[in-house]
Amino acid sequence: MSVQTPAHPAFVQMVQASFAAQGLMTTLGASLTAVEPGTIEIEVPFHKGLSQQKGFFHGGVVGAIADSAGGYAALTLMAQGFEVVTVEYKINFLRPALGDRLLARGSVLRHGQRLTIAEAKVTCRNQGKERLVATSLQTLAPVPPETTAVDPRTTTQ
Amino acid sequence: MSVQTPAHPAFVQMVQASFAAQGLMTTLGASLTAVEPGTIEIEVPFHKGLSQQKGFFHGGVVGAIADSAGGYAALTLMAQGFEVVTVEYKINFLRPALGDRLLARGSVLRHGQRLTIAEAKVTCRNQGKERLVATSLQTLAPVPPETTAVDPRTTTQ
Amino acid sequence: MSVQTPAHPAFVQMVQASFAAQGLMTTLGASLTAVEPGTIEIEVPFHKGLSQQKGFFHGGVVGAIADSAGGYAALTLMAQGFEVVTVEYKINFLRPALGDRLLARGSVLRHGQRLTIAEAKVTCRNQGKERLVATSLQTLAPVPPETTAVDPRTTTQ
Amino acid sequence: MSVQTPAHPAFVQMVQASFAAQGLMTTLGASLTAVEPGTIEIEVPFHKGLSQQKGFFHGGVVGAIADSAGGYAALTLMAQGFEVVTVEYKINFLRPALGDRLLARGSVLRHGQRLTIAEAKVTCRNQGKERLVATSLQTLAPVPPETTAVDPRTTTQ
Repeated sequence: MSVQTPAHPAFVQMVQASFAAQGLMTTLGASLTAVEPGTIEIEVPFHKGLSQQKGFFHGGVVGAIADSAGGYAALTLMAQGFEVVTVEYKINFLRPALGDRLLARGSVLRHGQRLTIAEAKVTCRNQGKERLVATSLQTLAPVPPETTAVDPRTTTQ
Repeated sequence: MSVQTPAHPAFVQMVQASFAAQGLMTTLGASLTAVEPGTIEIEVPFHKGLSQQKGFFHGGVVGAIADSAGGYAALTLMAQGFEVVTVEYKINFLRPALGDRLLARGSVLRHGQRLTIAEAKVTCRNQGKERLVATSLQTLAPVPPETTAVDPRTTTQ
Repeated sequence: MSVQTPAHPAFVQMVQASFAAQGLMTTLGASLTAVEPGTIEIEVPFHKGLSQQKGFFHGGVVGAIADSAGGYAALTLMAQGFEVVTVEYKINFLRPALGDRLLARGSVLRHGQRLTIAEAKVTCRNQGKERLVATSLQTLAPVPPETTAVDPRTTTQ
Repeated sequence: MSVQTPAHPAFVQMVQASFAAQGLMTTLGASLTAVEPGTIEIEVPFHKGLSQQKGFFHGGVVGAIADSAGGYAALTLMAQGFEVVTVEYKINFLRPALGDRLLARGSVLRHGQRLTIAEAKVTCRNQGKERLVATSLQTLAPVPPETTAVDPRTTTQ
């Protein structure tokens, strides 16, 4: 793992401000429970509006917070004014997400100038017991402030 | 692509009933717009509760409906009483999902007895123009009716 | 799919020269059978040195030529002097690769300035019949000539 | 991580015999350097026949031994007579694989009755220093002895 040194002293506020601006995180009832250099935790309490057909957390919620946890883990290391976009991710679902709370822990595996690789581990708490329900591997790209209109995934050559 | 023959004559109703029972699809405002053998379309109109920090559709929404579209595409081919679980998926985000409506089209690439492989293409409509914003590749497993409590990803050997 | 216009008029030679310089392609007995804008075909005849334990093509060979086919498909669209590196790929194996020849067809799904997304379809010919054995989804990054020492995946910020 | 208990007392021999029967491992010059319950190490010394166009280890070699390391990690936990097939994997390349030796360490993350999830970390040794060059996430399926002709990925329903 590379050295995880934040480039922006106020990286916690940078992450919190971005998170607060995401309508989906409010819709899902997600909150940031840890913001450290290269690591993020996102928590989501269960409610019926997050379920699949059998009453477990929907995989879409698990995927969404895994993606966000990895993305914000990358953002903790970015310089002021940068944003981060997800290039792609892959997620394995290991167990049904049955329980009262999801917790996604994202961490940066490799932080480069042009690409950052992160993983996320998602656990679900059921009757007080926390179990791993999903693991993801993700590629992210920084978007520099002077080119916020220019998405690195899409600029045509 | 394998022959896409539904094993259950009422596969449309089977899919619709499962979809209607998913709280998350209601929360996202998603609806089924096509249910054919081996193919599904899911539509989501934009609202602020689905946004990321810049007002585009959040990647979590894109991922959730790609996952669901691939999963329900698999379910169209299952026998009566079966359910489907997502083993894993991988998704690439090709462009920012800026627009007024997302459309995910899931299709089965290979339908086996123990595993089904599907893909999904997600487009976003902006000012009347539909553009590809994400593409996914997904592995699914059937859950037979006599063992609904037994998730194929998790049964300990 | 974006417009697939080669940036280098001699893109065929550029691809062939790079392919010829890859020791592994010689070791595997792989050859380029098609080089078109945004599309590549690589062929590998079977021999025992490419087998897994039951005499099929080893998944490692399937993965290697899927990766190369997607990578060279991206290279067909690059400007003179550029190279391409694989950021990541995901591959699903759909059937055992039993037969006398593998054929990987790589094609670019989205070509951006900083990242290119490609897929590959790998078929295996058995008793004259060609069947799909694997499908991959891949992210690639260009390496500009002036910075060949600078790998976009690795430069530390 | 689930408890990693081998189901076959002679799991080391089971893995070694399968590895020895893979022509590709010989072609690549790969050897098994560790076989433990739920964990495998595979080593590959550099030679020109394994290179890409700039003289590094080809990504195809990195992918092949990551796949094999995860697959054999799963096999260590299987009952006598079982085989393992790779359903799919995803791999991120973190750095150029420049050096004199690759080492892939595969480990099982979750071992179920019908599916096993593994990861592999691939390091490359350069001037005595070992660095992480790739990380993978993989889904595997057991093939029971009574149905060796029946590949779980492919049986038509």
